[in-house]
Amino acid sequence: MNRSTTYRLFVLLFLSFLSRTPTWSQSVTVDRIEPLNWWVGMKDPRLQLIMHGKNISGSSVDIAYPGVKIERVSKVENPNYLFVDLTLSPDCRAGTLSIQLYQDVETRKGRRKDTTQRIAKSYTYELKARTDFVKAQGVDASDFIYLLMPDRFSNGDPSNDKFADMADTQADRANPFLRHGGDLQGIINHLDYFKELGVTALWLTPVLENDQPLTNEGGTLRSAYHGYGFTDHYQVDKRFGGNALYKKFVEAAHANGLKVIQDAVYNHVGINHWLIRDLPAKDWLHQWPTYTNTSYKDQPLVDPYASRIDREVTSNGWFVPFLPDLNQDNPYVANYLLQHALWTVEYFGIDAWRVDTYIYNNLEFMNRLNAALLEEYPKIHIYGESWVNSVPNQAYFQRNTINVPFKSNLPGGCDFQLQFAINDALNQKPGWNEGVQRIYQVLGQDYLYEDPSRNVVFLDNHDMDRYLSVIGDNLQKYRMGLIWLLTTRGIPQMYYGTEILMKNFKNPSDAEVRRDFPGGFPGDRENKFIASGRNQAENEAFDFVKKLANYRKGTPALNSGMLMQYTPVDGVYVYFRYNDQKTIMVVMNANEQDYSLKTGRFAERIGNATQGRNILTDQMQDLTREVPLAARTAYVFELLP
Amino acid sequence: MNRSTTYRLFVLLFLSFLSRTPTWSQSVTVDRIEPLNWWVGMKDPRLQLIMHGKNISGSSVDIAYPGVKIERVSKVENPNYLFVDLTLSPDCRAGTLSIQLYQDVETRKGRRKDTTQRIAKSYTYELKARTDFVKAQGVDASDFIYLLMPDRFSNGDPSNDKFADMADTQADRANPFLRHGGDLQGIINHLDYFKELGVTALWLTPVLENDQPLTNEGGTLRSAYHGYGFTDHYQVDKRFGGNALYKKFVEAAHANGLKVIQDAVYNHVGINHWLIRDLPAKDWLHQWPTYTNTSYKDQPLVDPYASRIDREVTSNGWFVPFLPDLNQDNPYVANYLLQHALWTVEYFGIDAWRVDTYIYNNLEFMNRLNAALLEEYPKIHIYGESWVNSVPNQAYFQRNTINVPFKSNLPGGCDFQLQFAINDALNQKPGWNEGVQRIYQVLGQDYLYEDPSRNVVFLDNHDMDRYLSVIGDNLQKYRMGLIWLLTTRGIPQMYYGTEILMKNFKNPSDAEVRRDFPGGFPGDRENKFIASGRNQAENEAFDFVKKLANYRKGTPALNSGMLMQYTPVDGVYVYFRYNDQKTIMVVMNANEQDYSLKTGRFAERIGNATQGRNILTDQMQDLTREVPLAARTAYVFELLP
Repeated sequence: MNRSTTYRLFVLLFLSFLSRTPTWSQSVTVDRIEPLNWWVGMKDPRLQLIMHGKNISGSSVDIAYPGVKIERVSKVENPNYLFVDLTLSPDCRAGTLSIQLYQDVETRKGRRKDTTQRIAKSYTYELKARTDFVKAQGVDASDFIYLLMPDRFSNGDPSNDKFADMADTQADRANPFLRHGGDLQGIINHLDYFKELGVTALWLTPVLENDQPLTNEGGTLRSAYHGYGFTDHYQVDKRFGGNALYKKFVEAAHANGLKVIQDAVYNHVGINHWLIRDLPAKDWLHQWPTYTNTSYKDQPLVDPYASRIDREVTSNGWFVPFLPDLNQDNPYVANYLLQHALWTVEYFGIDAWRVDTYIYNNLEFMNRLNAALLEEYPKIHIYGESWVNSVPNQAYFQRNTINVPFKSNLPGGCDFQLQFAINDALNQKPGWNEGVQRIYQVLGQDYLYEDPSRNVVFLDNHDMDRYLSVIGDNLQKYRMGLIWLLTTRGIPQMYYGTEILMKNFKNPSDAEVRRDFPGGFPGDRENKFIASGRNQAENEAFDFVKKLANYRKGTPALNSGMLMQYTPVDGVYVYFRYNDQKTIMVVMNANEQDYSLKTGRFAERIGNATQGRNILTDQMQDLTREVPLAARTAYVFELLP
Repeated sequence: MNRSTTYRLFVLLFLSFLSRTPTWSQSVTVDRIEPLNWWVGMKDPRLQLIMHGKNISGSSVDIAYPGVKIERVSKVENPNYLFVDLTLSPDCRAGTLSIQLYQDVETRKGRRKDTTQRIAKSYTYELKARTDFVKAQGVDASDFIYLLMPDRFSNGDPSNDKFADMADTQADRANPFLRHGGDLQGIINHLDYFKELGVTALWLTPVLENDQPLTNEGGTLRSAYHGYGFTDHYQVDKRFGGNALYKKFVEAAHANGLKVIQDAVYNHVGINHWLIRDLPAKDWLHQWPTYTNTSYKDQPLVDPYASRIDREVTSNGWFVPFLPDLNQDNPYVANYLLQHALWTVEYFGIDAWRVDTYIYNNLEFMNRLNAALLEEYPKIHIYGESWVNSVPNQAYFQRNTINVPFKSNLPGGCDFQLQFAINDALNQKPGWNEGVQRIYQVLGQDYLYEDPSRNVVFLDNHDMDRYLSVIGDNLQKYRMGLIWLLTTRGIPQMYYGTEILMKNFKNPSDAEVRRDFPGGFPGDRENKFIASGRNQAENEAFDFVKKLANYRKGTPALNSGMLMQYTPVDGVYVYFRYNDQKTIMVVMNANEQDYSLKTGRFAERIGNATQGRNILTDQMQDLTREVPLAARTAYVFELLP
């Protein structure tokens, strides 16, 4: 998620929460019950329903269904809510239960005594049976993640580009800040493309409903095409295709050997979220006397010397004015988010979570949520966006080896430190602490992670300048960086379009690095999904990624073997991935000049091998004598006797 | 210790170790027994004597002294050595024992049978009683360390400047690379100066004998005036005044409330060390087929992916060619170094150890040595020079909170990371990761240390460009940095001459930052030890340090209170030192412009205080309204009701 700077909406929102005087009507109506449904046989027998309806808080609730027990019915400040805590016993069976709402209304008839009339209404709620379709497979270092933005990838269904009943009614490909019409059908249409490329997992930026108004950011009207402002947790945005198509997409991906990673946003929601428009309680959000933005500083969260106010500003300050900051200390908020996470995996069958703006959440709550997901789905992977500036601080927010009062249980993280390092490696002259040395140094601090192989490594993402631009459009560097990405430790992630040389800086805005994939939209003059639509350089790039990714996919030593790295000497960085069966040698000559590499120093890993097969050119390389390295070139050798 | 680059001497040394054929003489003579003496009543009852004499290894050894038992007599490759392991029982009394050496010599007289003649020689060895003179006091955050180089500080005894019987016979103040004649008497002569300045501890670069030849480094002949090439562990260099004067110096320092820190070098010795000139065994040193320098890289020691060869090069490569690298895996080497450390504290009464080139030692051995010192002297402090490039890697080499297979027990370290940070704070414009933010970020990683207050913080040292030059001779920055040094967490250390504005870069050599203290040497035209010898700027600097250091000395809240730091905003960094009695507020305006500081954000620490006394100007500052800050200025306020 990216930062922004308009503050106007905050005041509006803050004022919208005023004390309400309950005005009882004769009859109450429930307009929402969430989670939308639940399942019998979940490991945790508890379920908390949130019920919403005008003035329902005076009602009493009854459920008569075998195995379902009401533990508690709770009111909050806002009379339009009831929270119903249930326990589902182990023998509870799937079916549709009836929730009875009773309201006692006093009536007076002439001089006769008051009488009480009980008005009842009934609502159905489904407890489904769990099915064992493919879900929650997790992603690990043997995967290759492709990150894409649904609105910008491909428009497979122009009929759902815009809707008159939504807060933002527009779609306009000519405007970089408005919706472009990309959708889930567009992604489904290109599953073969991902497979050809060697991709094994898709990470989509958020797909949940963002029924947000256009926001004015620095004088420009912008839509929520990025998806980070949820307005309904239980609906996939209908402009992407809705719940049914998302379910179909996950099934189709799975059928094609592709995993699906969902982008989770727990820290905040959209200003148009139904729970924000009728706030259950003032403390549903982090409220401040005047609008307070997060400082975006991680230090107060880890610093033993931090002040209380700095910690609060980091955690409870708002990410941007139009994304209200949820107060996860409120147990109803916490349950709401936690149950939604479980519901999503069980309902859609997603394989992993990427957690947006991880560090700004209540970290104890995140531990609880992560534990709940892992308890129910032991193979699922969860990795967080902790965009910080040092390895220890990154490690702090995930499972680590550091004895600190707060211990995170997050299994993995987006490895920003390695992203900084690879850019330095490609753009700085080799030096004591510069250039390729940076990768070596950052990996050398992996002792701070409990399991660094669960980190997601990347060259760029949707919030950053695109890789090819950062390296000055240099195709030699391009190949070096991709070789590194696909041979270093961790789970590699590539941002859509990198394989066809998409580029750009964020100047003047994020939209520049979120351009449409050429060929993904009706009327596109070019189609870069197919070889004939790509120019020579693009085909070379595509084929390069394809060859490397597919080799990686079929080579356990490379994708999940052990790593040994050697101190870079003379700007040449050499490392090995290996297991009992195979050894892969990676050589990166970061110099502007050719170099002749002596191999004796690598005896511990080269062992008895005498030659290496260059897996990109299929040429054999004699390793018993000096290896000639071209300037700015990386090599991947599979060692042979 | 600084690096250098001549390799010639290595070959000489390597060849000097050739297999020797024992040539037995009628009678053997012991010319050395070390430790020079020992004490009864040490916690560890073990003592290993090293005995040296031509061909003594064929001798047997006997000691008849109540409470002393010979556990083992060991030979090594070189027949000129015997190692005698003793145990001293708890009831063993002080006294002089007699070590008997017996040699059986076979004689043949005509046709008669061979007879064996036993030849005996006797050597005395003193077991002293332990006395409780002041020693091993430790240094902690309430101290203020003054680092000086004895050869360059003051020459109190011109009669000991040079000796014809030493390998280096010269002394010449006109030559920056030769000895200048400074000595312990010169330091003793200025104890009042340190006291006036507010210093509480003296760290001298090494004082042990460096009977080294001049070395040719890059075409320049250089002496071992710096002291890092020991040639005799049991003799203080006679050019500094020898053992007796060092003992007197420590006593005089203690009598004046000053502690003494000794500079320990365990990793290597001088090429002229007697043990190198007659090497006990080839594996006394780290031997390489061809000269191999350490890579100076810390990463292979911490990196989970490191190769064996990289680890070996770092640890076992030589620091420079004329400083042979000791193999601490050899148990005799280890015992020799460990006993020397204990002997030094017990004999001279030093208070703390600074350990040179800590990371290149055998770290398991260092743990053993540290544990032995701390077992015998619980209050002693030991801090290491780990000149690395990240907080975790620095923490790795001392007591830390990281679960790694190797756990260091070193209590503290020279805080290089904060040295880098303060220089960035003073020289970079404030930014997201730049300027004052750097100090804040580095301190924010203190969770990696078990006790960061035991780190030694500094602005520069004898191996670095001098502080005043690094900050561009800017006296505003000068004061900011010193205020930081004397108010941040840890044990502050200042390099000699900083208080009188000594400056210089290392260009063209280290000698530039190791110039003589003006007034310390006979014939000096200027004497900056006294106010009348200093110009106005120098007096202002001196008085500034003096006022701050003495205030710190008398203010526990400042020198050892808790720390709270606030996220820098607008280039202004605010932090507090506090205990139950007192709160000190430090404000650093790193901008080139004046600034008006709102104080509301600091309510958690300012509490009910309404004003602060500027401890440098004694002026009162109203804290209930905005505080005017001058550009590039730091303030120290003692809070008052």
